[in-house]
Amino acid sequence: MPIDISAKFAFHLDQPTDLLLQFEAAVIPEQKVLSSNTVLSPALHTARVPAQDAVGERIWVRAEGDYNVDYTAKVEINRLVPDLASLHQLDPHDLPGEAVEYVFDSRYCQADRMHSFVMDRFGDLEGGKKILAMCDWIADNFTYEAGSSNATTTALDTFVERRGICRNYAHVMICFARASTIPARYVSCYAPGVNPPDFHAVAEVFLNDPTTPGGGAWYIVDPTGMARADQTAKIGIGRDAADVSFLTTFGLSKFKSSEVNVSESA
Amino acid sequence: MPIDISAKFAFHLDQPTDLLLQFEAAVIPEQKVLSSNTVLSPALHTARVPAQDAVGERIWVRAEGDYNVDYTAKVEINRLVPDLASLHQLDPHDLPGEAVEYVFDSRYCQADRMHSFVMDRFGDLEGGKKILAMCDWIADNFTYEAGSSNATTTALDTFVERRGICRNYAHVMICFARASTIPARYVSCYAPGVNPPDFHAVAEVFLNDPTTPGGGAWYIVDPTGMARADQTAKIGIGRDAADVSFLTTFGLSKFKSSEVNVSESA
Amino acid sequence: MPIDISAKFAFHLDQPTDLLLQFEAAVIPEQKVLSSNTVLSPALHTARVPAQDAVGERIWVRAEGDYNVDYTAKVEINRLVPDLASLHQLDPHDLPGEAVEYVFDSRYCQADRMHSFVMDRFGDLEGGKKILAMCDWIADNFTYEAGSSNATTTALDTFVERRGICRNYAHVMICFARASTIPARYVSCYAPGVNPPDFHAVAEVFLNDPTTPGGGAWYIVDPTGMARADQTAKIGIGRDAADVSFLTTFGLSKFKSSEVNVSESA
Amino acid sequence: MPIDISAKFAFHLDQPTDLLLQFEAAVIPEQKVLSSNTVLSPALHTARVPAQDAVGERIWVRAEGDYNVDYTAKVEINRLVPDLASLHQLDPHDLPGEAVEYVFDSRYCQADRMHSFVMDRFGDLEGGKKILAMCDWIADNFTYEAGSSNATTTALDTFVERRGICRNYAHVMICFARASTIPARYVSCYAPGVNPPDFHAVAEVFLNDPTTPGGGAWYIVDPTGMARADQTAKIGIGRDAADVSFLTTFGLSKFKSSEVNVSESA
Repeated sequence: MPIDISAKFAFHLDQPTDLLLQFEAAVIPEQKVLSSNTVLSPALHTARVPAQDAVGERIWVRAEGDYNVDYTAKVEINRLVPDLASLHQLDPHDLPGEAVEYVFDSRYCQADRMHSFVMDRFGDLEGGKKILAMCDWIADNFTYEAGSSNATTTALDTFVERRGICRNYAHVMICFARASTIPARYVSCYAPGVNPPDFHAVAEVFLNDPTTPGGGAWYIVDPTGMARADQTAKIGIGRDAADVSFLTTFGLSKFKSSEVNVSESA
Repeated sequence: MPIDISAKFAFHLDQPTDLLLQFEAAVIPEQKVLSSNTVLSPALHTARVPAQDAVGERIWVRAEGDYNVDYTAKVEINRLVPDLASLHQLDPHDLPGEAVEYVFDSRYCQADRMHSFVMDRFGDLEGGKKILAMCDWIADNFTYEAGSSNATTTALDTFVERRGICRNYAHVMICFARASTIPARYVSCYAPGVNPPDFHAVAEVFLNDPTTPGGGAWYIVDPTGMARADQTAKIGIGRDAADVSFLTTFGLSKFKSSEVNVSESA
Repeated sequence: MPIDISAKFAFHLDQPTDLLLQFEAAVIPEQKVLSSNTVLSPALHTARVPAQDAVGERIWVRAEGDYNVDYTAKVEINRLVPDLASLHQLDPHDLPGEAVEYVFDSRYCQADRMHSFVMDRFGDLEGGKKILAMCDWIADNFTYEAGSSNATTTALDTFVERRGICRNYAHVMICFARASTIPARYVSCYAPGVNPPDFHAVAEVFLNDPTTPGGGAWYIVDPTGMARADQTAKIGIGRDAADVSFLTTFGLSKFKSSEVNVSESA
Repeated sequence: MPIDISAKFAFHLDQPTDLLLQFEAAVIPEQKVLSSNTVLSPALHTARVPAQDAVGERIWVRAEGDYNVDYTAKVEINRLVPDLASLHQLDPHDLPGEAVEYVFDSRYCQADRMHSFVMDRFGDLEGGKKILAMCDWIADNFTYEAGSSNATTTALDTFVERRGICRNYAHVMICFARASTIPARYVSCYAPGVNPPDFHAVAEVFLNDPTTPGGGAWYIVDPTGMARADQTAKIGIGRDAADVSFLTTFGLSKFKSSEVNVSESA
């Protein structure tokens, strides 16, 4: 069943400023964009470029004054969603080149600091079973609390403070996976069931399905428990939230409002 | 004039462990590897994969017990080294896709925290002149001091403590550039003149030479002042040191020794 | 000329909760409280205890529901305000016992991390001249910006980000002084000229006036430049803001509003 | 049974430098110093001052060149060591003035960041039972590992990394207690059983024994499990390790060696 997406946001730029936008459901094999409509305010310059690892597009904008984004789409998700518990992890030396960078530390995910904890808590598990245990641990120990984090909050901060939003949950999940040498990346997305409705973020881990050929694939895991992998429309991916914001301003902007709605298509 | 490189290092693995090695001069257009010899200890598994952005190779190893790396090479550097002061910076929306990720924050380079400082100190400069001013500022304000940093030291720590080694100098340089929306990346390398002789690290910034066609290129800048761009043999690049270590161990290892010598060829 | 103080604040407690209040001008030799009136909401328990180093009083409260504080006072400041440039610093071994703890690091003031910077920038100055140079440096390099910091912002964060409010300015000043082995403490206070009107914070440094007997005294320094030492009514002191908040809640509270006005008496 | 203490340490000062030493068993009611001998190198200046809260003495020294400390003592511990499980915690508003500062955050103990964890994990316990559960949790989750921390390691770092030495264990214990509004302080001490033999550190918490009059007292708790409260000779106390080092140098020093031995008296 397709999902219907509607996202609007608005901001103001006091002077001509460069922006990077990434808010549209990506056109990738695992999801089909049945229809979409993007309305952007007039700008001094607008250009589309492929986003990280060719998942989705970034839009460069140079604009001034009030700027509005209005996006609607209907997306059909065709992603295979195996039982994570059945998936294996690859030995590091069997990882394909494109997965390797996702075992390294990044801005918000300092996995090197969490080796001891992860070994101690999850060391006797492997692959998808380990990921599920990590996911459960986060769900059991963290409180979802709007306003409890900010743009500088790292996975370490969240691990200590035990509170956060989807972004923070995903960062801790990524750290735990990387600390076990399971590649993990950050996915910005739309999903029904996110409460309050907003842009959402989940983690993706690189595991191997022993029943299919090939050297592994990316599988969604959402430690907040709000999004279902078979209903999640990906916007883009990155090493963490630093790479894939719906709005990055290279200069000052005044954010005015945003409204996101995602639902199963009637 | 070519440079002669010799690098040896040794470590011990108590049990079968996966490693990632990246220590060889990269085979890339700007430098010609005239000869090279790599001798690795016997291992359970060894495989080469392309490294980040196809600059150089990583070697996956699974090994146990004592492990030694012995590498020698003669490399001719053909890099164009224009006067940085003559180079311009590109508007963000003119950056090619492959440069975009290098304006984002990374593990050790939290450029978002340095916007105010960079605007205040370097805001009236542009392009290569700005990079040179940043480089001078670092050289003037920092003390090169072995042992003053460790694996968790970020660019923020170094900015506060005013001490560090090549890695830390490069991280601060990268932060400053990114805070000005100039893409910047980390380069591990060999260079004569590094004192004490060791693996070296410099920064690279993405600027545009108005006298040549094309949309910009990467230019080396070394805030330690020890390496010359026309004598620097690149090993690999990354968003920061997290991406491009000569030895990454996925498990425990005991480092035993290393010895690096780089000189202008006789 | 006396100053008139008016401070009101209100908050709500969902359940019986312990609080610590410290908002009244301290009764100490250097300032005379000509008149004052404190009106507190009814509480389950209220008790006054001496505050840190016997400067002012803390009020323990156990209360539930809406709670309001309404305070007015007229205070005459009799503090001696010598030219800081004429004051000397004491050798560490000449510091009196009560000043020693104020050279040590505290929650928000990690002076140990700033030794290199302070030596490099201010190393050729001494005593009050050094303090004045530090104060000027902060004023020149920082931007006063409401909302730019939060409860976890340390002096290191502020030093990097170059923005903050009075609390952050005072923390950096304290770090700089301590890094020079000049004892420094945090003063919460009322002062006319604070803009926007609010509770204020300044630093105090322990220096010696060579023209008077005795082993040194505390002198106010305000790197924000908003408060004059001869018009500052002290509330309390501490090692940093962790010690001397106008409201510390041991449990959850919902802050509703505050309003502070301070003026020269008509 | 008394304990025998022997402590020696040596360092070098390139130029005349001020130092603060605190290494002698404190003369306080709960422990009797039966005999002691302190031999210090000749110095330019030496003076004793009371240490924090009058527990023990600090020695100011101004010296140059090689400096040696040689200390031996026999100390009888008369401390009452009740079952912690029988002790109650005081309501914040019943805390005596001198205990209040020990609920506030300090350099290495940012208890404010740990409220959620402490509430979630220990929220259903009270007083001494809560302290014992915290102590057990630390012992179960941390690994004692020399070299795993340094002078900048905070309780947050240790909480994340799950490794440390006595100092780090004590810092986390102090955070946990303060996050529950139980005053907690840092105690540097000598104790037999510390392995490897060295200066030791434990935490002290302020609790109330319902069977005795008075408003509470300090009780030792050692999350490393190495020291027994009835065999621990206190040197000094502080808000954390920043306040009570055996050697604080106000300038540069080269540490040469130290040797500590503590045993039950024959």
